[in-house]
Amino acid sequence: MPRYALKIEYDGTPFSGWQRQADRASVQGAVEAALARLEQGLPSIAAAGRTDAGVHALGQVAHCDLTKDWDPFRLSEALNHHLKPHPVAVVDCARVPDDFHARFSAVERRYLFRLVSRRAPLVHDRGQVWRVSHDLDLAPMQAAAHHLLGRHDFTTFRASLCQAASPVKTLDALDIEDMPYPGGREFRFHVRARSFLHNQVRSFVGTLERVGAGAWTPEDVKAALEARDRAACGPVCPPGGLYLAGVGYPTDPFAQE
Amino acid sequence: MPRYALKIEYDGTPFSGWQRQADRASVQGAVEAALARLEQGLPSIAAAGRTDAGVHALGQVAHCDLTKDWDPFRLSEALNHHLKPHPVAVVDCARVPDDFHARFSAVERRYLFRLVSRRAPLVHDRGQVWRVSHDLDLAPMQAAAHHLLGRHDFTTFRASLCQAASPVKTLDALDIEDMPYPGGREFRFHVRARSFLHNQVRSFVGTLERVGAGAWTPEDVKAALEARDRAACGPVCPPGGLYLAGVGYPTDPFAQE
Repeated sequence: MPRYALKIEYDGTPFSGWQRQADRASVQGAVEAALARLEQGLPSIAAAGRTDAGVHALGQVAHCDLTKDWDPFRLSEALNHHLKPHPVAVVDCARVPDDFHARFSAVERRYLFRLVSRRAPLVHDRGQVWRVSHDLDLAPMQAAAHHLLGRHDFTTFRASLCQAASPVKTLDALDIEDMPYPGGREFRFHVRARSFLHNQVRSFVGTLERVGAGAWTPEDVKAALEARDRAACGPVCPPGGLYLAGVGYPTDPFAQE
Repeated sequence: MPRYALKIEYDGTPFSGWQRQADRASVQGAVEAALARLEQGLPSIAAAGRTDAGVHALGQVAHCDLTKDWDPFRLSEALNHHLKPHPVAVVDCARVPDDFHARFSAVERRYLFRLVSRRAPLVHDRGQVWRVSHDLDLAPMQAAAHHLLGRHDFTTFRASLCQAASPVKTLDALDIEDMPYPGGREFRFHVRARSFLHNQVRSFVGTLERVGAGAWTPEDVKAALEARDRAACGPVCPPGGLYLAGVGYPTDPFAQE
């Protein structure tokens, strides 16, 4: 069976998350239903990141095995047709070797978190960013983020339900970009690692927001990390600002040949 | 009665337009209902631009007269509270002289139109941009836009229902900015004039898109303008990409004092 990699964009708002669940709308379920319109009796699909309810993706990667030899562009067009009206789109598609696995072959996950500081409620980005109504200070957030870089036991920033074998992970980047936003300011957190613990990015951003607001110091974040205690974490922020931005593989399956 | 200017942001998707209509949701109706929660028996409000159904605003300006002397910031907070859950927000508020009129004092309207070219359906910007699935060429669109600048009889680009006294208007700017968009390219049309005819911006963009697609030449746009004939216009594009971006006054009512 030929194997295909799919690059998938979605708005997580109406879904209970990536993973298929009985009686609840999921992104996996929507993609599998579209695949079932093309070929029946397909095995379930695997994805690089099992995003939570309300979390979005710009570049989720999944793979599937089909019996027919599809032209990748035509496959993406057919899937997009059958995905309507869900807010899910296949933005790229490629034939991949049989040993490619969307989850286990991945060597990097990139997340984006959008945080907006402005007084007025949001209109155009509802559910797409986390809004706080107070000012935030960039420099201390950056100083605090610096403490999180590298290889650490991230127990503090890990959901109690996390199923990862070890809390030790290496955080390769946590860059914070700030830019104007109508009536306020936007902060974009660009976070990169080989893999993440459950709720790790939202635990980071929720804690760093406390630093930006002046309630925590950068040193408090260092101490929280070193405590290796979930109770030392700041508040976990809401899911609507989080995007799985991209997934890295040893060879990019979507690179133009 | 003290007079206030309101700068208003809204998502036009659920509304039949700015203007209040019986039995249909309108932005004016939503703002007036919020004002009525503060003071009863208020006169109706006036706005700088009566946007059509599905058209958005980043900086609509309206004025209202209240009996109480409100602190402008507290007024905007109270209105935003009562505007929930509508996708409408008061992003600025100022006390203005009694002779200020949101519509008749305005000396400039600025519109933004967002056009995205990409093959896959949109996920995060549904209803917020106009998507076409083919490539667009920037340079001929810019050349065609250049023919529209200045003072002209814009009968070609005017809806047949337009109530303006004259089809002669002066177009001060029609700049097209292009930028990356995930899986495609975005073109932002920045359009500026003292006032516009009904459907003028959407008639411009619909026609310029034909140029970008290669179906029309820039000279065809010049000939269409000179025809002064509605039938010579290209297709009027959908409303979801259009934003009333801002309104200019001889003195900015929202400038910090």
